[in-house]
Amino acid sequence: MEANNDLNYFIAGFVAGEGSFFVTTSTTTTWPQVTCAFSIKIRADDREMLEIIRRALKFSGAIHYLPSRRYQYSWNSIKRHDAVMLIIRDHDELMSYVIPFFDRYLLHSQKRRNYEIWKQVVQMMDRGEHLTGEGLQKILELKSQMNRYQGQDVEDESLSDSADEHE
Amino acid sequence: MEANNDLNYFIAGFVAGEGSFFVTTSTTTTWPQVTCAFSIKIRADDREMLEIIRRALKFSGAIHYLPSRRYQYSWNSIKRHDAVMLIIRDHDELMSYVIPFFDRYLLHSQKRRNYEIWKQVVQMMDRGEHLTGEGLQKILELKSQMNRYQGQDVEDESLSDSADEHE
Repeated sequence: MEANNDLNYFIAGFVAGEGSFFVTTSTTTTWPQVTCAFSIKIRADDREMLEIIRRALKFSGAIHYLPSRRYQYSWNSIKRHDAVMLIIRDHDELMSYVIPFFDRYLLHSQKRRNYEIWKQVVQMMDRGEHLTGEGLQKILELKSQMNRYQGQDVEDESLSDSADEHE
Repeated sequence: MEANNDLNYFIAGFVAGEGSFFVTTSTTTTWPQVTCAFSIKIRADDREMLEIIRRALKFSGAIHYLPSRRYQYSWNSIKRHDAVMLIIRDHDELMSYVIPFFDRYLLHSQKRRNYEIWKQVVQMMDRGEHLTGEGLQKILELKSQMNRYQGQDVEDESLSDSADEHE
């Protein structure tokens, strides 16, 4: 149990960096369709990490294999190489496994803020609120607050640092 | 102590995704100068994460502020926004704090493999082996094995998956 706990905190840290909590709204239907999902996409040679995360989240779905688009010159190794992705969209799985996991193994970082907003949307959907005009309005508002940069970018180039030799 | 342990596993997970262990060799001098470093660079609005990591690694150096280069259209938020970076190059700090930390709080993922090679180089330097021809040769060999993609990219586009709506 303790050993698992250590691993779960490790996973929370990995997800704080690499994971993604997001809400999509399709407008092709008369009533916008709201979908919440958790996903994580990493280099294909790190597939084992996704297997570990899948087990921890008790997720039974597939790990997707995404061949690279051969942007050979991209600095980003996810674009240069094949990737693997885990994506959980099933509402019950989000409610039963994903939320209890990240409520317990705290995400620090700005991803925590994002997660808390995202969780509100999932919970509203659980109560069917996305089917009312008021609820939908609120969801769109919450969605607009997600993935926003929280700082003020500095314009002064003199603060720059040249240490850029790493990935 | 236990609480700290949880945080340290979280940090190890975060670093497994976002951190960088690297070796540079300058060739501007007659005898190549080898430098080992650990660094981590994230969005500036996530500075608090770096403060947490700095404390955990007992690092006394500065956190660098890197204004963005204003690649407005980059998909990557590190390029779109200002970033903050922690970089530890001091040999004694690497030996006394960084290595003991990551030896204890295991990095899973391919970064673990990378870390183990990097650690070998730091330890060789600790024994002064970078000052001998044989040692230097071995270091260059180890360096060439770092940050290598370990998989075989698949050419078959039919395996592709369109789930690409997230960051």
